[in-house]
Amino acid sequence: MSSTTLDGTDYLDAVSSDPGALGWMQGFPPPHNRVIRFEDDRCFEFPESRWSLSHIRELMPTVAVSRDPHQQRTLTASNDGHQEAIESLRFIDLTGQTLSWEQGLLGTYTDGIAIIHRGRLVYERYFGALRPHLPHLSFSLTKSYVATLAASLIYQGVLKDDWTAQHLIPELKGSAYADATIRQLLDMEVGVRYSEDYADRQSAVWQYQWATGMRPRPHPYDGPADLRALLPLLKKEGEHGQVFDYKTPNTEVLSWIMERLTGQPIAQFLSEQLWAPLGCEFDGTLIVDPTGVAVTGAGLSVTLRDLARFGELMCRHGAQGISQLIPAAVIDELIKGGEQTHFSATDYPLLPGYSYRNQWWVTHNALGAFEGRGIHGQRLHIAPRAELVIARLASHPVATSAANDLITLPLFAAVTELLCQERL
Amino acid sequence: MSSTTLDGTDYLDAVSSDPGALGWMQGFPPPHNRVIRFEDDRCFEFPESRWSLSHIRELMPTVAVSRDPHQQRTLTASNDGHQEAIESLRFIDLTGQTLSWEQGLLGTYTDGIAIIHRGRLVYERYFGALRPHLPHLSFSLTKSYVATLAASLIYQGVLKDDWTAQHLIPELKGSAYADATIRQLLDMEVGVRYSEDYADRQSAVWQYQWATGMRPRPHPYDGPADLRALLPLLKKEGEHGQVFDYKTPNTEVLSWIMERLTGQPIAQFLSEQLWAPLGCEFDGTLIVDPTGVAVTGAGLSVTLRDLARFGELMCRHGAQGISQLIPAAVIDELIKGGEQTHFSATDYPLLPGYSYRNQWWVTHNALGAFEGRGIHGQRLHIAPRAELVIARLASHPVATSAANDLITLPLFAAVTELLCQERL
Repeated sequence: MSSTTLDGTDYLDAVSSDPGALGWMQGFPPPHNRVIRFEDDRCFEFPESRWSLSHIRELMPTVAVSRDPHQQRTLTASNDGHQEAIESLRFIDLTGQTLSWEQGLLGTYTDGIAIIHRGRLVYERYFGALRPHLPHLSFSLTKSYVATLAASLIYQGVLKDDWTAQHLIPELKGSAYADATIRQLLDMEVGVRYSEDYADRQSAVWQYQWATGMRPRPHPYDGPADLRALLPLLKKEGEHGQVFDYKTPNTEVLSWIMERLTGQPIAQFLSEQLWAPLGCEFDGTLIVDPTGVAVTGAGLSVTLRDLARFGELMCRHGAQGISQLIPAAVIDELIKGGEQTHFSATDYPLLPGYSYRNQWWVTHNALGAFEGRGIHGQRLHIAPRAELVIARLASHPVATSAANDLITLPLFAAVTELLCQERL
Repeated sequence: MSSTTLDGTDYLDAVSSDPGALGWMQGFPPPHNRVIRFEDDRCFEFPESRWSLSHIRELMPTVAVSRDPHQQRTLTASNDGHQEAIESLRFIDLTGQTLSWEQGLLGTYTDGIAIIHRGRLVYERYFGALRPHLPHLSFSLTKSYVATLAASLIYQGVLKDDWTAQHLIPELKGSAYADATIRQLLDMEVGVRYSEDYADRQSAVWQYQWATGMRPRPHPYDGPADLRALLPLLKKEGEHGQVFDYKTPNTEVLSWIMERLTGQPIAQFLSEQLWAPLGCEFDGTLIVDPTGVAVTGAGLSVTLRDLARFGELMCRHGAQGISQLIPAAVIDELIKGGEQTHFSATDYPLLPGYSYRNQWWVTHNALGAFEGRGIHGQRLHIAPRAELVIARLASHPVATSAANDLITLPLFAAVTELLCQERL
């Protein structure tokens, strides 16, 4: 067994924490200390997470985001020396160490990575518990899916930037969200008291996880019975529209608005608008709360290829064949990005010059790149001017993206540079 | 609203209990009294069941029985006057009433029915909450799937009729199952103390439902923590091999044996052996217990067409195209049936001359018909000599098959007779 030190804590490294090597859920029954149960509240903890992020539906209730068997298309792999070239890459991480491509994948606890370049799937690898047919929890990439649909509704005039949440959901009167606008929700510029401090069991993030049913509730439990009982309880703190302030419940409010507006549960809307016409090969999976409401701040699981497929759609400005699934203007707006002065260099020292728009992270770089980012290493990187998409699913021990960005940013930069050399 | 009296109790009729009409889970959020929550323990109760049997994965943890996107095939409908002819049918039910075909479907609270005749899908209807892409709980049809795989393993010599459960699962020593043979498990001839009395909260059927996690546990709960903690606790009562005595845990023991023998979780084994090569269009869904063990006595949800497809495979003696997915001998053995003298005319007055073999109900009729049967109206009827398969999913208020057999038996007989006239 070998370990690695991250944020001052020792963790098993990727090889030693491989869920097969550790024997999680293997055997009939598995040894007592190798069973992962929802009620033990270790699903999202390392190293159990290396198994459970690929097996979410076995641990909690979920709803399918249905593909359409008549529209599905297979992504075919293409390899004209791409694999060899990519795997020969070496790069310097942000701590100054030189790493091989393989060390980069292992160092980020990658469960799967797929790269599409110029419309071709040029690289695809699976590690740990992930398999091509298994949906992997994407955490906050969920937000990018949902918000992209919302941005499309705005483009279509169904939803308006300046509408307040209260206008559409009267139940939110008196909460932080009452006077928050759709634009502020989309760009995470809502002043809401919501602490993501996991160490403090009184903090709102725990209320969120208990309300959604993503984690076992304490007994007795007298908190909000479900997600939409929680949202109206969140109080205002500061002003809206001043700074980028990342708060997961903002996306839940957005989904609530979309459901009431479209009359469709978000899983069905996502299926009809995106999953089916995109030709996804597998159903997505959304965690649902105890009343069947989809957890759209963090609850989508998706297979690696279907994730890459979504990235490719964004990369092609929403066009798939003769269909325009997402208005091109939505992607143009994304590339242009949000308000860079609202994005704190102090909070995100590794992301200088970035902004946040429509629940995507926008680089403002020469390639027009923007990203979906989810904790524990989930990433969907799209560089339209390089015709490049990198989809990565992971089970990194540390939640924050910053922990893996030390490797991820230079890793992705290196493969981008390689592919842009056009030798391949 | 109109109601119907069954077993001395008044129930809303099929039209009045339509889940859309009742508004279950409609709205964002639905009205308080129209939410179906697992914790309220009404999922399996009428009329909520009319919604929840088509939405099981939204209520509890499940594992996919994966289809293979590269092997899936679409069942195409064929209608040369079949639909009109079938819908013009009238028949006399076992209480002496004359009913139309439509009344027959409504009277059995049908959620979906598909008929395959001579290899063509000649009839297909959906009611209530069921949709073509939604898997519906099949209850004990699950047993027929699993036991068919076991019968194939016996044919292949991997499993032996006369092996005892204890031989393969030493943990069963001291339980009713210790000296039960594979054959006795398959034919439900095990002497085990297991009461299915739902009215008695001390009865074993409640232990089963709490252990599997299919129903919310009482607080505090000190019963078996999971399915395989329960099975070794079941005690012997009477002798094995004497009479047909239907007990759900027998199938769970069988699955445990198969998992240990094949080294594969049953969901994966079912996928590889059947779901994928059969060309299923949708994933099946198996309820899992808190340790991830599939509930194979009652936990499989399947789409209507994929269920019909399985029936068609059985009807064709296990052959699909050039592949033999199930040994023909397994189906020959089924048609021949089990020990009719072990089948109690007192317990099953509506099923004279039947026997039970390999977890199928065998009619011993001229058409060689056999059936899978699940509570609340689930039925897979296969008549090989008529080249006929009827798949029906339902949410009948009364659990026992006898309650709907009063209509189902003559309904199926009428459509069989019609199709066998060969006018179509």
